[in-house]
Amino acid sequence: MGKGEDTRAKILEAALVQASEGGFESLTIGTLAARTGLSKSGLFAHFGSREELQIAALDAAANRFIETVFMPALKAERGLPRVREIFERWLHWTDDSGLTYGCPLHAAALEFDDRPGPVRDHLVARYQSLQQNLERAFGLAVDTGELAPGSDVAQLSFEALGIVFAYYHAARLMRHPDAASRARNALERLIASATPAA
Amino acid sequence: MGKGEDTRAKILEAALVQASEGGFESLTIGTLAARTGLSKSGLFAHFGSREELQIAALDAAANRFIETVFMPALKAERGLPRVREIFERWLHWTDDSGLTYGCPLHAAALEFDDRPGPVRDHLVARYQSLQQNLERAFGLAVDTGELAPGSDVAQLSFEALGIVFAYYHAARLMRHPDAASRARNALERLIASATPAA
Repeated sequence: MGKGEDTRAKILEAALVQASEGGFESLTIGTLAARTGLSKSGLFAHFGSREELQIAALDAAANRFIETVFMPALKAERGLPRVREIFERWLHWTDDSGLTYGCPLHAAALEFDDRPGPVRDHLVARYQSLQQNLERAFGLAVDTGELAPGSDVAQLSFEALGIVFAYYHAARLMRHPDAASRARNALERLIASATPAA
Repeated sequence: MGKGEDTRAKILEAALVQASEGGFESLTIGTLAARTGLSKSGLFAHFGSREELQIAALDAAANRFIETVFMPALKAERGLPRVREIFERWLHWTDDSGLTYGCPLHAAALEFDDRPGPVRDHLVARYQSLQQNLERAFGLAVDTGELAPGSDVAQLSFEALGIVFAYYHAARLMRHPDAASRARNALERLIASATPAA
């Protein structure tokens, strides 16, 4: 990695932590200069605008999600073991990747839902791809026969995402000690509802 | 309503719309002065601090939620009809109450989950009460025999909240045309999983 790429990576790391902590709204060239100790003009050399910086940070968050959740889950057997592995990793992926203040993509989803523009478009594309990966994992469980033929994998993915959101809420805001076990119960109920009749 | 109360109500209305649009982070005496046309000192006469303003706006949002979702649902028969009525109203309560940019309480949940203090404490108490109302509605459906005896109403409420979050995400960010039907399917699946065996 050259010096320029190295600096860019450091800036993006700081941007991820900032977005985790204060949302993308708090992600400005100014706050990032303060956090990295770089000059504003130095930052502008890497990211020509706040929007460019926000998009790069979204990409960095999505890539880290893929590396932390989906990639390692490929080692689990295809079918339900892989679905469960993805889910389990998803529950604590922010802690596993140093984003202790929560998922930046989730924060961005609420911040940009009503703000048309390139950042929103980018975010939607990233969530679409996440949803496709999840549908593929459920689809493999249909292929293995663990889930009933014709199961609606889009519906299953919609509900799995809801369980993760409920978990974030219960764990992060409500500090509920049973948050993870409730999330696991919910996933098992979802799986049971799509299991072929014996 | 006296003139003072009238002005206070107008300020809170503007605060709700502002929080719906830009989150509680955007809710300052300054942005609210611009939105209402009142002077900053006039606003300070009603709310002595930004924190006081944020707490009053949270209360206003929670009260409006109760008036728009829970109160009218009391007219539905206790048991599953009431559960479904609450859920249905919940899906479009922001549109029904002029908060077209989304649920301010949901925005606050992500903004304050890592910020200890009176605003966070207040928000947690409001969500606890929401969760209790929801558990009570599920509990009545156990009493009527529509749900199995011993159903875990806390678990059902956790999952119902997750379905609403997934719906907000699919409808607001992804602009998915099937968002509402997926949410209804998910609720029916949840209900079916707790229905007593025939």
